[in-house]
Amino acid sequence: MIKVNDNYLKLPGSYLFSECARKMKEYAAAHPDADIIRLGIGDVTLPLAPAVIRALEKAVEEQAHAETFRGYAPDLGYSFLRDTIAEKVYGKLGCAIAPDEIFVSDGAKSDCGNIQELFSEDARIAVCDPVYPVYVDSNVMAGRCGTYDPETGKWSRVIYMPSVAENNFSPSLPEEVPDLIYLCIPNNPTGTSLTRDQLKVWVDYAVKNNSVILYDAAYEAYISEEDVPHSIFEIEGADACAIEFRSFSKNAGFTGLRLGYTVIPKRLRFNGASLHDMWARRHGTKFNGAPYIVQRAGEAVYSEEGQKETMEQVNYYKRNAALIRDGLLRAGFKAFGGVNSPYVWMKVPEGMTSWEFFDLLLDKAHVVGTPGSGFGPSGEGYFRLTGFGSYEKTKEALERISKTINV
Amino acid sequence: MIKVNDNYLKLPGSYLFSECARKMKEYAAAHPDADIIRLGIGDVTLPLAPAVIRALEKAVEEQAHAETFRGYAPDLGYSFLRDTIAEKVYGKLGCAIAPDEIFVSDGAKSDCGNIQELFSEDARIAVCDPVYPVYVDSNVMAGRCGTYDPETGKWSRVIYMPSVAENNFSPSLPEEVPDLIYLCIPNNPTGTSLTRDQLKVWVDYAVKNNSVILYDAAYEAYISEEDVPHSIFEIEGADACAIEFRSFSKNAGFTGLRLGYTVIPKRLRFNGASLHDMWARRHGTKFNGAPYIVQRAGEAVYSEEGQKETMEQVNYYKRNAALIRDGLLRAGFKAFGGVNSPYVWMKVPEGMTSWEFFDLLLDKAHVVGTPGSGFGPSGEGYFRLTGFGSYEKTKEALERISKTINV
Repeated sequence: MIKVNDNYLKLPGSYLFSECARKMKEYAAAHPDADIIRLGIGDVTLPLAPAVIRALEKAVEEQAHAETFRGYAPDLGYSFLRDTIAEKVYGKLGCAIAPDEIFVSDGAKSDCGNIQELFSEDARIAVCDPVYPVYVDSNVMAGRCGTYDPETGKWSRVIYMPSVAENNFSPSLPEEVPDLIYLCIPNNPTGTSLTRDQLKVWVDYAVKNNSVILYDAAYEAYISEEDVPHSIFEIEGADACAIEFRSFSKNAGFTGLRLGYTVIPKRLRFNGASLHDMWARRHGTKFNGAPYIVQRAGEAVYSEEGQKETMEQVNYYKRNAALIRDGLLRAGFKAFGGVNSPYVWMKVPEGMTSWEFFDLLLDKAHVVGTPGSGFGPSGEGYFRLTGFGSYEKTKEALERISKTINV
Repeated sequence: MIKVNDNYLKLPGSYLFSECARKMKEYAAAHPDADIIRLGIGDVTLPLAPAVIRALEKAVEEQAHAETFRGYAPDLGYSFLRDTIAEKVYGKLGCAIAPDEIFVSDGAKSDCGNIQELFSEDARIAVCDPVYPVYVDSNVMAGRCGTYDPETGKWSRVIYMPSVAENNFSPSLPEEVPDLIYLCIPNNPTGTSLTRDQLKVWVDYAVKNNSVILYDAAYEAYISEEDVPHSIFEIEGADACAIEFRSFSKNAGFTGLRLGYTVIPKRLRFNGASLHDMWARRHGTKFNGAPYIVQRAGEAVYSEEGQKETMEQVNYYKRNAALIRDGLLRAGFKAFGGVNSPYVWMKVPEGMTSWEFFDLLLDKAHVVGTPGSGFGPSGEGYFRLTGFGSYEKTKEALERISKTINV
């Protein structure tokens, strides 16, 4: 009799965002006149930049003619894109990343979810708490997380690194040494980040302990402050301990186009095994390249017009995030993030849970956000709002919140 | 000290097609005047059909405007595509497959590689021999295949089901009962297929033994013969034992666009666990949907024009396959497949290995094919040629073969 992978069956309940969507839908059905404003999801709303659209049009046209048609893409990405990233992203930051250390994929979510395959089954993982749920869930599926305690919301073998107001959202080094350290900087959901000096502590720790840092930099385009690094490879020693994930979703609105990349330095070797070569083998076996037309769109992001246009989009979302943050602070809430990030993280009123606040906000202000507890046990008592809506709607949401919700 | 997943390190040497490409490149460098004809790879060469191009153009235009822009796709695929497939593919075949049993993805290779995650670590797999290497390799990475014997080319825990001329390429039921049975029908590389009655034997076997059939139907568009089923769900009982993988690569030239889907019937449950729900969870955690524009392109394949245009492409490749098959037979070779498949499988001359024939063919005829031994131990002594080239080049290749190679 066949047995399923019962690690899958350990995963509790439904996915956070489906639960939010379900509640919103129910409320909308019961209150058809409510004009609900969605500040919950991490999806972008502005259309693709003109330079990106032109690149797509051109690439589609190429696919229409035998002389310019392209079939299977190289598993690891087209050179035109890998070269561009090496130069325009890493070269610009002064990081010595070679094009063949860059693996193009269908998005950072896939890569963040799949990377754990390269490590042994008994590897211990550490995650910031709260954080993007994919890191933990993908390791649960691989049997690395032990058992789930619904009381605490914790997995027995996961090392949680609380990132809360009390430590200024800068998690302490864990007491037990993890094999894999997931860092999402700027953080989803807290919208906070680490300075160069703070990140250096983590790199040194990983090098010293032979740990690997899995660095999710999906939100780097939102960084405003000078002392916050855009890449972990800006930190000396990182090429001996870190893998970096990058996305085109939030810097260029590719959530529906699907494009990302992962940087694995060739220097990254453990017990003689090259993580770079292992990932190449994984890509070659279980992936078949990102679409040619989408890779051309990605290349266009780094053209002069592409940079100008996509930075305008980022600035638009950043203005929304600032509006949320300032509005919440003015209304008397405690609010964090929103400076180097599209996300604002707020404290819910004393004595309420995150989900209670979700219901209150929906009912009183007709605004949807995301309960902090969905991102990890230390997210309880917090709430996430995002800057990805329209400026007008975001402004109205804040007005409604300040009028209807008492801190 | 972190440990890597050492199952990866068990995988021998480089990937078959890279090795062929390397040898071809070396030969071309040493013989710059040789006009090499490539009949080795499985990639298509005709441009995308006009109906597909129009759908792409329209979808790109939608992505350029806020009112029609689409961000994150539903993890499991847009309804417009799932509904279309349920009706135009399965409805037409008389199979009761519901839209929500269809999971849209970035291609059958990813799905075939990832599906093994749903099963326990000690699941035993059975594969046709020879066959597409991804099935075995992805299970090696997960630690299910035991150890590799370079002498025999076999993994100790894999159940091989030889498909050779002696059994008319219809593998016998295995002596040991496997948990997972990979069937690629029409087969890559042999180009042969199973009749409805032959497939029924496998379905009955799987149902009786509580095995799961992983049915890769990537080449179904090439089926010409009436008694060869297009889907395993045409066979009674399959919805209690089978998962089917489908691709847009070979029926509509999407090798560079990346689109596929996997059908998991809701009835497919083992020990109370639903494989359908597990796969939905995997998609939700480690995948973020196929691009909107590509899903619209997929929808267009099933329009009236799309069907007409893509069937013309398939017929073009089928004519090439017939040309190869007939040319080889006329030249005195034993040749198989090429009727329900774009692939022709030939016996190499007595006393030669597959790789020796590769070198001979390249040197004498300047034609590149794929050595059969690369697809499994029972592929030794065989060679694969594909119909995906141009008619003129294919014709010339066959003329050169019959002139220069003695059987």
